Amino acid sequence: MQGERIWTAGLVVIGDEILSGRTQDRNIAQLAAWLNVQGIRLNEVRVVGDETGAIVEAVNTLRSRCDYCFTTGGIGPTHDDITVDAIAQGLGVGVVHHPQAMAILDAYYATRGGLTEARARMARVPEGAALIENRVSGAPGIRIGNVFIMAGVPHITAGMLDALTGTLEGGRPVVSRTIGCWVAESEVADMLRDVEKAHRDRAELAIGSYPFFRNGRTGANFVVRGPDAAAVDACLFDLTTRLEAAGHAVAAEGI
Amino acid sequence: MQGERIWTAGLVVIGDEILSGRTQDRNIAQLAAWLNVQGIRLNEVRVVGDETGAIVEAVNTLRSRCDYCFTTGGIGPTHDDITVDAIAQGLGVGVVHHPQAMAILDAYYATRGGLTEARARMARVPEGAALIENRVSGAPGIRIGNVFIMAGVPHITAGMLDALTGTLEGGRPVVSRTIGCWVAESEVADMLRDVEKAHRDRAELAIGSYPFFRNGRTGANFVVRGPDAAAVDACLFDLTTRLEAAGHAVAAEGI
Repeated sequence: MQGERIWTAGLVVIGDEILSGRTQDRNIAQLAAWLNVQGIRLNEVRVVGDETGAIVEAVNTLRSRCDYCFTTGGIGPTHDDITVDAIAQGLGVGVVHHPQAMAILDAYYATRGGLTEARARMARVPEGAALIENRVSGAPGIRIGNVFIMAGVPHITAGMLDALTGTLEGGRPVVSRTIGCWVAESEVADMLRDVEKAHRDRAELAIGSYPFFRNGRTGANFVVRGPDAAAVDACLFDLTTRLEAAGHAVAAEGI
Repeated sequence: MQGERIWTAGLVVIGDEILSGRTQDRNIAQLAAWLNVQGIRLNEVRVVGDETGAIVEAVNTLRSRCDYCFTTGGIGPTHDDITVDAIAQGLGVGVVHHPQAMAILDAYYATRGGLTEARARMARVPEGAALIENRVSGAPGIRIGNVFIMAGVPHITAGMLDALTGTLEGGRPVVSRTIGCWVAESEVADMLRDVEKAHRDRAELAIGSYPFFRNGRTGANFVVRGPDAAAVDACLFDLTTRLEAAGHAVAAEGI
């Protein structure tokens, strides 16, 4: 299992509304879960405001560092939607109206007051780009090279990800299994470290420890993650056995 | 109002659980809202995994670029909690057990099974650091230079922010006012751009446009943000007047 290629992605979340605290981001978790199923690992996320320089820097860094670079936000019709222009600038290409996007918007707005100049802004793409189907509303997403430009509104992003499902090359999906104990994680910290160390020699995996305090009691969930399901299960079995030997009852699916 | 100093912050969210989609981050929105009140602008967020190199790069970049750099996550007692070591490495200092943190943990665990070696890990700080009070559980947060190392669990982070309230130098708090219309944002895109342009010459402010689709109807909220409350109100008044003149009823607090 060692030496297997790991496919990676970066995400740039674009929008003053996230940095101001007005809007709770949901796209990080949504993209992360979707990527797991595609066998692609989310390596880094950057959240930047509606500012050309910041977008260019983040996208250029993550697209060169990762196999795929996704962005969310800033592709609507208004003055604060500058994602397309910033990415085109970062790529050193011009911006054009994509004919197919124009046709899609024309059809979408035919019964909604017509395709105004502001709405036609949503057909603008970096030169050489392809479209990502929008199954929810009018304006499509955009793919150029390894950059995927998506909506900020989570349910529209979800539709775009749905359209991309199965189209990106990835490795084996990451498997994740959880167990839980009513124990302070600090009591079993050494055990967790030892078990991870023992199993990490054989397969790429990691144990995460997530403590909580609920109904006046202290507990923790332990999550084993890796691309090799058998190795994850073996690690989980080992951890469960050791926890029970130390007198901690283990809840099989977490608490 | 022009030329007024803007105080800035960066945030590094640390944890595989965020990048795997297992946990929905809540600290970005929480810190952003708190910073607004302190008169500090959140300029950039990076989310990185439990990996030393990634933490060092993100913290070193944001601490040099912003007035303040906050981190959340990775300061517990287990093997995947490597934030303190990574930041110490990034700062080029050693790691020591902070005597006051040891005393706090000793007292906290006196009735909870005693201060084990794993628990004492939570007293480890980069050399030269001060503590941030933890009003919720045992282990304190850490301040070193302009870096603020906080918990990953949102309600513990909230307690640490509460302890920091009023202690950081900032500018005027950002004021934010929202109005809403049952209108497609694409219909009023030109108006928004013109109003923002006209008012931005007089004071630093921005108009954000946030469309939604609810109960079968299209609408948008428009948010004016800036440090000068009078300028924000003037801009909002201008925008409201123009929206109503164009036949769109305006909901004063947003929809």
